[in-house]
Amino acid sequence: MTSTTITDLYPSRVGTEVSISQRKDPVVYGQQLPGPLSDEQLKFFEENGYLFLESYFDEEEVRKLQDEMNRMLGEYKGSSKQEVVLEPDGDEVRSIFSVHQLNEIFRELPKQPKLQNAAKQILGSDVYLHQSRINFKPGFTGKEFYWHSDFETWHAEDGMPRMRAFSCSIALTDNYPFNGPLMVMPGSHRQFISCIGKTPDDHYKSSLRKQEYGVPDEDSLKCMADQYGIEMPTGKAGSVLLFDCNILHGSNSNITPYPRSNVFMVFNSVENKLEEPFSGTKPRPEYIAHRNQTQL
Amino acid sequence: MTSTTITDLYPSRVGTEVSISQRKDPVVYGQQLPGPLSDEQLKFFEENGYLFLESYFDEEEVRKLQDEMNRMLGEYKGSSKQEVVLEPDGDEVRSIFSVHQLNEIFRELPKQPKLQNAAKQILGSDVYLHQSRINFKPGFTGKEFYWHSDFETWHAEDGMPRMRAFSCSIALTDNYPFNGPLMVMPGSHRQFISCIGKTPDDHYKSSLRKQEYGVPDEDSLKCMADQYGIEMPTGKAGSVLLFDCNILHGSNSNITPYPRSNVFMVFNSVENKLEEPFSGTKPRPEYIAHRNQTQL
Repeated sequence: MTSTTITDLYPSRVGTEVSISQRKDPVVYGQQLPGPLSDEQLKFFEENGYLFLESYFDEEEVRKLQDEMNRMLGEYKGSSKQEVVLEPDGDEVRSIFSVHQLNEIFRELPKQPKLQNAAKQILGSDVYLHQSRINFKPGFTGKEFYWHSDFETWHAEDGMPRMRAFSCSIALTDNYPFNGPLMVMPGSHRQFISCIGKTPDDHYKSSLRKQEYGVPDEDSLKCMADQYGIEMPTGKAGSVLLFDCNILHGSNSNITPYPRSNVFMVFNSVENKLEEPFSGTKPRPEYIAHRNQTQL
Repeated sequence: MTSTTITDLYPSRVGTEVSISQRKDPVVYGQQLPGPLSDEQLKFFEENGYLFLESYFDEEEVRKLQDEMNRMLGEYKGSSKQEVVLEPDGDEVRSIFSVHQLNEIFRELPKQPKLQNAAKQILGSDVYLHQSRINFKPGFTGKEFYWHSDFETWHAEDGMPRMRAFSCSIALTDNYPFNGPLMVMPGSHRQFISCIGKTPDDHYKSSLRKQEYGVPDEDSLKCMADQYGIEMPTGKAGSVLLFDCNILHGSNSNITPYPRSNVFMVFNSVENKLEEPFSGTKPRPEYIAHRNQTQL
């Protein structure tokens, strides 16, 4: 076997039938490395595909991030800036991408040893940010994010070859079971759902508002939920959720008065270099998926 | 004071400003009556405006109700029958009204002593059904029900004069924190939010799909949520939630594979006879609000 990089281990959006296959990659790559995560925590992450760290940032750290986020939400309301994604039916900001490039405070954040070294423990190598964003789910009118595997999209649309990346979500508001928190299916990261439907070019322009391709079918979701269950890790602002690139996750709407905001950073291994997108489309822009491995 | 029946103790949809006023009626009227609810349970209901009864119906009773509900959901899919309310963007059934008149099994249900006598304990008199319905929130695509007080609508649109009614919701599917369960603000039943906006005639034709009038404003909701908090009473199919006519409640969407269905029955005191609607509109039809006090 001479070809390694062009083999598609996780085909999706290429066939006409749904299939579920086993993960072909490890989940934790750097157990032996020094860092903030204990063996027990790494084992939990490996088995469940996520790890929740209650109050990982203290009140002062959180306030600084909140202030900056609120300033940005005001600044970008109704913005046509490419990094800014608005709610489907309004001017409210749903996401701001590439915050670690737009903003000094969010640029420093992923460099903190308690994040960067945790990332090295999980990914077993030097790491860089594949993507960063603030997700803002407003009170009263916050919309749902439907179930998906991030990896399916990063593989199909960004050319991420292997499952060697994870998301780090820092809660900037208190998360309750009732304000549309992230739901995960623990263990689902060990299986890959191949989705149907060919990806159109520039899919990201609409998918960030409402996804239509790379969406798992209802039968597969039911099967996975029955097998793995659903958890909602919630906690105070400052809590951190780490979750594997392939875990099924999503969130319900939020009619409560309490907004739900998080800053997301996706750590990828420098050894998991992006290739051409596996769905055959042109790569998404740099602010959504950094092809340039800016070292932390 | 000679006029009693035409005094509007709870004006709403008549002014141009929102106001919050104190409840002018008791919550529990029949503490002294025999029945299934303990003094403690009645006290909890009085203070919190709701009472959750885990597994109040056993598995066999639940299965009988589920079978009948599923049969009706199939029968009424896409139906134009007046009692059937469809989802805003599809053929799926969202609610079926007046199930105690449409169906033999649901006709017998409210007559069971463990429901009827509980109703008498709370309302302190003979009781009848003001409304009955099945609410069906499908998996994957179930939509939210926004915050509201039932009484506000029943007062404004049906002419219910006083707060002397409550809902009994029997879970026909397991309710989890993640499949869009009913949320309540415990204690909010002691205050009345007067809403703005004049009700159009035949408002019910659209409001049962998506409510636009009688909706509390965001500032009032925030104030109430901060004061009273939010609870999500959840449990197995067969559990029963009793909640006061004026408690603020609502529910988020449901993207999980698990549908959420309940049969609702609204018990009203025979001494709380409907008058002309207080918003000045013509009364809603009999299948939504029974003016004829059919005794149980």
